[in-house]
Amino acid sequence: MINLESAMRRPNQLSRRRFASLTACGALLEAPLSAQPAPPEIQEVHHGVWRIRLGSPEQLTPVSTRKYSVADEALRALPSAGACPISPDAIAGRASRGGYLVSLPLEPNELVYGLGLQLQSFIQRGLKKMLRVNADAKMDTGDSHAPVPFYVSTRGYGVLIDTARYATFYCGSKARKARKRPATANSPAPDSMAGLLPAAYRRYRFGEPSEVLAEVPRAAGVDIYIFGGPAMRLAVQRYNLFAGGGALPPRWGLGLWYRCGSTLNQDEVLGLAREFRERRIPCDVLGLEPGWQTQTYSCSFVWNKGRFADPAGMIGKLSNDHYWLNLWEHAYTHPNSPIYDALFPFAGDYEVWGGLVPDFLQPEARQIFADFHDREHVSLGVSGYKLDECDNSDLTGNWSFPEVSAFPSGADGEQMHSFLGLRYQDTIQSIFDRRKMRTYGLVRSSHALAAPYPFVLYSDLYDHKEYIRALVNSGFSGLLWTPEVRDARSTEDLIRRLQTVLFSPLAQVDTWYMKNPPWKQVERKANSAGQFTANWQEVEAQCRTLIELRMRLAPYLYAAFVRYREQGLPPFRALVLDYPDDSGTWTVDDQFLMGESLLIAPVTAEQSQRTVYLPEGGWFDFWTGNMYSGKKQYTLSVPLDQIPVFVKSGALLPLADPGLHAEDVAGWQLTVQVYGANTKPAVLYEDDGSPNPQMTSVTVNWDHGKRSGSLARSGPTHDKQYAVKKWQVFQG
Amino acid sequence: MINLESAMRRPNQLSRRRFASLTACGALLEAPLSAQPAPPEIQEVHHGVWRIRLGSPEQLTPVSTRKYSVADEALRALPSAGACPISPDAIAGRASRGGYLVSLPLEPNELVYGLGLQLQSFIQRGLKKMLRVNADAKMDTGDSHAPVPFYVSTRGYGVLIDTARYATFYCGSKARKARKRPATANSPAPDSMAGLLPAAYRRYRFGEPSEVLAEVPRAAGVDIYIFGGPAMRLAVQRYNLFAGGGALPPRWGLGLWYRCGSTLNQDEVLGLAREFRERRIPCDVLGLEPGWQTQTYSCSFVWNKGRFADPAGMIGKLSNDHYWLNLWEHAYTHPNSPIYDALFPFAGDYEVWGGLVPDFLQPEARQIFADFHDREHVSLGVSGYKLDECDNSDLTGNWSFPEVSAFPSGADGEQMHSFLGLRYQDTIQSIFDRRKMRTYGLVRSSHALAAPYPFVLYSDLYDHKEYIRALVNSGFSGLLWTPEVRDARSTEDLIRRLQTVLFSPLAQVDTWYMKNPPWKQVERKANSAGQFTANWQEVEAQCRTLIELRMRLAPYLYAAFVRYREQGLPPFRALVLDYPDDSGTWTVDDQFLMGESLLIAPVTAEQSQRTVYLPEGGWFDFWTGNMYSGKKQYTLSVPLDQIPVFVKSGALLPLADPGLHAEDVAGWQLTVQVYGANTKPAVLYEDDGSPNPQMTSVTVNWDHGKRSGSLARSGPTHDKQYAVKKWQVFQG
Repeated sequence: MINLESAMRRPNQLSRRRFASLTACGALLEAPLSAQPAPPEIQEVHHGVWRIRLGSPEQLTPVSTRKYSVADEALRALPSAGACPISPDAIAGRASRGGYLVSLPLEPNELVYGLGLQLQSFIQRGLKKMLRVNADAKMDTGDSHAPVPFYVSTRGYGVLIDTARYATFYCGSKARKARKRPATANSPAPDSMAGLLPAAYRRYRFGEPSEVLAEVPRAAGVDIYIFGGPAMRLAVQRYNLFAGGGALPPRWGLGLWYRCGSTLNQDEVLGLAREFRERRIPCDVLGLEPGWQTQTYSCSFVWNKGRFADPAGMIGKLSNDHYWLNLWEHAYTHPNSPIYDALFPFAGDYEVWGGLVPDFLQPEARQIFADFHDREHVSLGVSGYKLDECDNSDLTGNWSFPEVSAFPSGADGEQMHSFLGLRYQDTIQSIFDRRKMRTYGLVRSSHALAAPYPFVLYSDLYDHKEYIRALVNSGFSGLLWTPEVRDARSTEDLIRRLQTVLFSPLAQVDTWYMKNPPWKQVERKANSAGQFTANWQEVEAQCRTLIELRMRLAPYLYAAFVRYREQGLPPFRALVLDYPDDSGTWTVDDQFLMGESLLIAPVTAEQSQRTVYLPEGGWFDFWTGNMYSGKKQYTLSVPLDQIPVFVKSGALLPLADPGLHAEDVAGWQLTVQVYGANTKPAVLYEDDGSPNPQMTSVTVNWDHGKRSGSLARSGPTHDKQYAVKKWQVFQG
Repeated sequence: MINLESAMRRPNQLSRRRFASLTACGALLEAPLSAQPAPPEIQEVHHGVWRIRLGSPEQLTPVSTRKYSVADEALRALPSAGACPISPDAIAGRASRGGYLVSLPLEPNELVYGLGLQLQSFIQRGLKKMLRVNADAKMDTGDSHAPVPFYVSTRGYGVLIDTARYATFYCGSKARKARKRPATANSPAPDSMAGLLPAAYRRYRFGEPSEVLAEVPRAAGVDIYIFGGPAMRLAVQRYNLFAGGGALPPRWGLGLWYRCGSTLNQDEVLGLAREFRERRIPCDVLGLEPGWQTQTYSCSFVWNKGRFADPAGMIGKLSNDHYWLNLWEHAYTHPNSPIYDALFPFAGDYEVWGGLVPDFLQPEARQIFADFHDREHVSLGVSGYKLDECDNSDLTGNWSFPEVSAFPSGADGEQMHSFLGLRYQDTIQSIFDRRKMRTYGLVRSSHALAAPYPFVLYSDLYDHKEYIRALVNSGFSGLLWTPEVRDARSTEDLIRRLQTVLFSPLAQVDTWYMKNPPWKQVERKANSAGQFTANWQEVEAQCRTLIELRMRLAPYLYAAFVRYREQGLPPFRALVLDYPDDSGTWTVDDQFLMGESLLIAPVTAEQSQRTVYLPEGGWFDFWTGNMYSGKKQYTLSVPLDQIPVFVKSGALLPLADPGLHAEDVAGWQLTVQVYGANTKPAVLYEDDGSPNPQMTSVTVNWDHGKRSGSLARSGPTHDKQYAVKKWQVFQG
């Protein structure tokens, strides 16, 4: 994190974000893009959303294959975006080497973010990204579980290039040949510049006007959608509402998730469930890993009766104890699967692990797949799935179908790699739609317009810092991400990873490779052999306290998800989204906002202190109640039992009593913490848990004069209602 | 290294390598490639080299833009290849998604190798590779400094797909959908299988017939060249002779190269040169790093007179001491360079580091660039160049021109990335061609048909194991590679890296980032501050002894390069090339052959022992003289002062006295080591050092009956002649 204040001029004021201000950049485009005869036509297709059609777009795109409709009403409810933030004159496109090339303007000091689940970079200006679906995103080349051809600008607008192709984005990183460039001093060699933004500032010429070049291979044209602001986060809200609005998980989805060791059988799973209750570890969801099926690579989707003789009975027992069950699987269908023959004609022409690749763009494939899952799993009480391996890999065994594959829907392999995660989610979601149930689950690949899916991304890559950056980045592109706890090198590493995941959309501990909870022993073999560390009860207690904090934050977090659904506002997002005019936030890729009032700065193992940048306003240390003034960077010591959390001055933070699960009455008993002098009301939500519930808003207020608080309820009455048992005032 | 003997059936005998045996695979291709109406026409374009033209190939390809002609005479001198090893019926091609898709057959248990400078994989069967030019090949996806669309098969043939596009190769890794596939047991999960070949054997179905799919984007057709064997190494020889024959370095090129710290000035360089002579460190070439120029990123190509006031004088002094000078540079031309204006019209439409990208496909660009270099450097005595940064990077600063660039020659950026290394070498080579001088240098990118270039690849990636693998792989694809010594974490690491590089085409120690030789201190800062380790003289002595071994091997190595030039036989190559029928060699990616008689098994730091696989025949430990029988794997302890070297039984190994440089008379005084009972004659070469010399062959022979040796000379008499002063017999 580097403060750029001194190095960079302030960007233009928001009020100047209009057509004319950007056309200067268009001049840059004349030479190579002159084939474009007239400015393309621009159309406001939704409130604050414009479409520019260049050339002849392809048939199969994220927009053309979408499941969810645009949340038009919610778009209209947002503040006005004003005029289209980019002039059509400043946008150019032309056919290019068998594909289509687009240029969009960049102003001096305009930064862009997004392009999906990027693990290794934050600011995208200056970088090249090829948006290729890949499970092994070990280099910052654009390979990603969830590449998204959408970026958002500090100048308060977003751009979606509607393609399922592996488009290449050059985000202001390339300079056209120009004889009149002023002579520059001898630049330092690249090695010495790596990673340092002040150097990047010079190298990438952030101070000069530039362009985003995007090449869409194999297309003869493309639709570009522009999302207005004028605030940066409004542009992202519009993108998410255009996608259909954000996902709202069931309340149980916000508790602890625990994935059992993949060798566990039915009795061992039930034993673990009992242990958690006995030892008072909050937990809402248990996940089964591959061992539950008769075939796994590829999958049969059939219960392995050797391990799980009575799945319905087991789920019934778990349900009585308020557990929900989630099943691991992937889509590649083994010849032994009962749906193999039916799926055969609706699958691609290449196999993966000897199994069929269902063409989920086809309704037949979706129906065969969903019907079987409904009958064999969901009807027994299965609450959702972890959809693995729907990305692609050139590395870990070079699995998945080739890009030259053909699918009955007409998609080729490249397109299908982009679509598979989305359309697989459609398929699974359809089961819960028809049952009128909410689900919440995991998926290892996604793409554009993913906001409405109650599926959270995860990865087999393990670097904690990258996991944190992915969480920060996810909010730019309509994605949810869990930095799940798996690998932990030490107890310290376990605690630090657990702290991070507890401040994420899905708080999961995944012990698929060992039998016992990691707090008993982090080392794999010893864990499975039942050799626990001497102080495991102490570590367990630390973990319990942390998990309880997650339970205490559930009402606050649930409300943030309601706003995701209704206003498109990402519950987890980078600081720059809320503070684009504060250049101190531009480089902050290791802190994020959760909901309206909390700023989280996770810590990784071996850090005994860390720097934290606090944007404008006052901020209270959640742990000490001390107030810090904003627009400053602080270096804080970070004791192992605390993850730095700051509460915005003016916030009312409702904290529930920690229950053992979402249905625990404790979760409705609130302590409201009052931060600072001029507090704004906080809004919580009550509902009946159905997919399209009538929401009851519960407004929490604090009267500083009377030094007393109140709850005001608006909407129907639901079974469970929040009550405040205590108010705590922090003056700063 | 894993012995597959037990897991795999033996491949078919060489004698069965013919048309009919491969057509079975063709059946696989029917469905997706049915657009191909008739078998493509096949033509024997050179002796043992066949061309199949599919569709309409592009204009700009490695073959169409080649500098060197086919070495037809040498091709005719090789043993007959017999009939074309692949039937045209078994090859199919069709237009595909805006590109062109080719399928070539693979038999059960047929393995393929090559595809250029791959650092992270060896056997290519089972893998997908996109052959993209990239300086940061940190993942095994095909990104490489020198991707080459050529592979060679254990069945004794090679295939070149003549394209400069980023072609994707699926080497038997994908299976078509087939309902009748026999049910298989539940496969283990991918994580547990990574990297293990017996698992790969099942996963990639090595035992089944398959295909190589190659997709060439943006092309409407492609020429495929097939190189006959029947021996595997003959196929590579034919490929190299088709390229024009291998490079022959000057003798001084085989001595030690030392690149000076980039901050050194003229006096410091001369001081270092004196120090090496005084301390009896053999050294032939000194290299200057960026500091010699007035501008470096981009380059001016102009001497920095602040540091080098009298380059000609300095070179004269170095030359008197038998040093040759090599200059670092890259091609991107700074506005301050005197050739900038002349180059401007012959450059691409995007800049790199503010400099022009010369279009070296155009003779004008080559001439402007070469003339200036000739006048300003070579005329002063500069012996060659290190051509840096001609690859491309998405990562270390995302530099280089975009793939959508346009060049005056008609090439786009993608093609130019493939061509830049080759055509840059053409440009520099042309200087030495017209001066009738040999040169030897370094280049950071190359591609197809590179064998004739006296330029050796290198990398900024530092992993020693990968450096070794690259050396093993380089011989498959007509490339030379130096695992140069740079980064060393410890003295042990330094010694181990030095041992490896001394058994490579170019023995370079590159200390660009520090002032003093690494044997005085490996730690950067301390080194430059003149803080040397207490035992540096001891370490220096160890290094001296190692470097002396390189000098002793020079006559042997020079002869290996003569065979590279005349017969196309790579001087450094994988064991499998010479022993394709010995499945024990198939996985050996950490040992290689140097010349005809030596097998090298480098060791990395922290290894106290290593396994070595010895192929059929007897092998003598170079250090102990002990004999080992072949077709076996041994585990050896590896003392730090020795790199495992084995001499083939039957070899005569001539070793020179160690001189300080190539012109030292010591280098012509030989000790011949006689290994085993039935020795074959060894051939050395004498010449006048000109680019196209008349070679005098010097046949070394040992009469076991008489227990005496002889030298027989054939050809003109040259100034310097080999003489044997001693014969040493090892009986085994």
